[in-house]
Amino acid sequence: MYYQAPRQKFLSLADLMNSTPSPQLGYIQNPLDRVHNNRETEGFIDEMSAREDSLAVVLAGDRPLYRKSDNPGATALFSISDAMALAPEGETLFLGIHPKGLPVFARLAKSVEDPGNDGDMHYVTEKGPADVEHCDLRGLALRGVVPAPEAGIVALARSLFAWHESHKFCSTCGKPSNMTLGGYRRECPDCGALHFPRTDPVTIMLVTHGEQALMARGAHFAPGMYSAIAGFMEPGETIEDAVARETFEETGLHVGTVTYHMSQPWPFPSTLMIGCYAESTTTELTIDTSELEDARWVSRDELAASLRGEADFSPPADFAIAHHLVRGFVDGV
Amino acid sequence: MYYQAPRQKFLSLADLMNSTPSPQLGYIQNPLDRVHNNRETEGFIDEMSAREDSLAVVLAGDRPLYRKSDNPGATALFSISDAMALAPEGETLFLGIHPKGLPVFARLAKSVEDPGNDGDMHYVTEKGPADVEHCDLRGLALRGVVPAPEAGIVALARSLFAWHESHKFCSTCGKPSNMTLGGYRRECPDCGALHFPRTDPVTIMLVTHGEQALMARGAHFAPGMYSAIAGFMEPGETIEDAVARETFEETGLHVGTVTYHMSQPWPFPSTLMIGCYAESTTTELTIDTSELEDARWVSRDELAASLRGEADFSPPADFAIAHHLVRGFVDGV
Repeated sequence: MYYQAPRQKFLSLADLMNSTPSPQLGYIQNPLDRVHNNRETEGFIDEMSAREDSLAVVLAGDRPLYRKSDNPGATALFSISDAMALAPEGETLFLGIHPKGLPVFARLAKSVEDPGNDGDMHYVTEKGPADVEHCDLRGLALRGVVPAPEAGIVALARSLFAWHESHKFCSTCGKPSNMTLGGYRRECPDCGALHFPRTDPVTIMLVTHGEQALMARGAHFAPGMYSAIAGFMEPGETIEDAVARETFEETGLHVGTVTYHMSQPWPFPSTLMIGCYAESTTTELTIDTSELEDARWVSRDELAASLRGEADFSPPADFAIAHHLVRGFVDGV
Repeated sequence: MYYQAPRQKFLSLADLMNSTPSPQLGYIQNPLDRVHNNRETEGFIDEMSAREDSLAVVLAGDRPLYRKSDNPGATALFSISDAMALAPEGETLFLGIHPKGLPVFARLAKSVEDPGNDGDMHYVTEKGPADVEHCDLRGLALRGVVPAPEAGIVALARSLFAWHESHKFCSTCGKPSNMTLGGYRRECPDCGALHFPRTDPVTIMLVTHGEQALMARGAHFAPGMYSAIAGFMEPGETIEDAVARETFEETGLHVGTVTYHMSQPWPFPSTLMIGCYAESTTTELTIDTSELEDARWVSRDELAASLRGEADFSPPADFAIAHHLVRGFVDGV
């Protein structure tokens, strides 16, 4: 409901290692200045591209690369020359300026398909240097593989690349469009339409009724994991209307007061998670089984136990906003 | 920060005429059930389309039509047969089910161009019945031409038609795509991609510093009008980050605590306005003149006077969320 220090200080690995572990909402730390006021200036992006001290993140399909190191620690920020070596033929985004004053780019590596352990098809690079690994973006944030601000930078790159991948053609006239402004816009040379990266607002709500909160699970969740419910917003809705509609559609519950708690960018591929509490005026559940496998009312005490790992279900991990909705309810926010 | 009665009761014209005038946030009352759980059911939309008791709104380009009447009052909801007569060749959306149990559609009228009084090109129908008028969507809400819930329905139709108009081709492969689910989706018959209506989140923030708030104006504003500042959110941002970035870009101010206040769907063409208060930690202004013509700190007392029409500038009209941010600050929210 409030927010301090909007310009996140870039945390060095030393800062992170010295800090006491605390719940970390994923992808919210992005230290870059996107310098929108400069992007349209003739020659500005060329000037940034000519600098040899730039940094870059590299994605192989949807998998970020990172350099293993015990000291100073793993990093997803490569020198621009290393990034060009890792991804000599890929597309380039200009993400912004690092607090250290260095331009930061993103490169999409030429890649080969690999089935991966989860059965999904991922893209990985041809064999690179021995100290360069790849990781899925969830794991990168969940396990703190690289410093949190770097996960934020990689998440931005992933969202932008995913948007470009699905928007190579002008939706107005069907002709191929071109990336401009370092990746923050596409332009159609045929009809002149301008296209901007898409961010889909999603409401995610912990539905409460007195001392209880509704925990639900989709069929694709990890075994035993229960979370808050969520859904995409639509044209013509307020945040509060969307919370009420989604809650009713998925559970049959009627919602009264809705309170905004916090938000999170979610790079799968590019949604804005708007986290709310929703006070239900009813308790009888009518589950939409196409969306949810199960839902149940859980007491505040049981939720507190679940956060300590002492319940018969698991709460969401702390890199997801649902964890912080649960924690806020337990803490009496 | 809170919200009551999420399922808006449908207000009849009589209700509205009997109610005391109060500040009205535009487009937020939409009484329709979008029945998403039924839309994919084979034959459901055909069944709705076959009903003769359906209602429909009609747009001529971006201008809604309405029927003039002193009793029972003007309405934008036509019988489906009247709507078909007004728009015999246009596209059809199935918007949802009215609280009275009636399906509600939207028709896009065949239209001819007309320059209009504001210099913009609008589309208006060929001459229709003498009691049918057209109006711009802003005026419809601002002047309360039709009941507020009907303005909400028309706003939804306008957002969806605008999306279809600019998304006739698949952005993934460039081939023509087809409208499905009554207008809530497009499908590409060639590559199979599914496309959903786009809603762009925008932060709109009243920047405050103690007893003062920042009021700004763009060059395109009505003479003397000052408002809150606003900007599109981007991939990788929290709401709070976007508030801080936009405020810094447009004014040079550094923002501390950000507090969510309320939200509003804005059908020009389809944004979600996320209204926040932003406490500035600095006061020196560096205006981005490409965005703003002027900005100034205004005391709470002057803002209160502006709401009474007694200041040397005008606040935003009460159908816009910026008005309610100003009013909330004046009231000490």
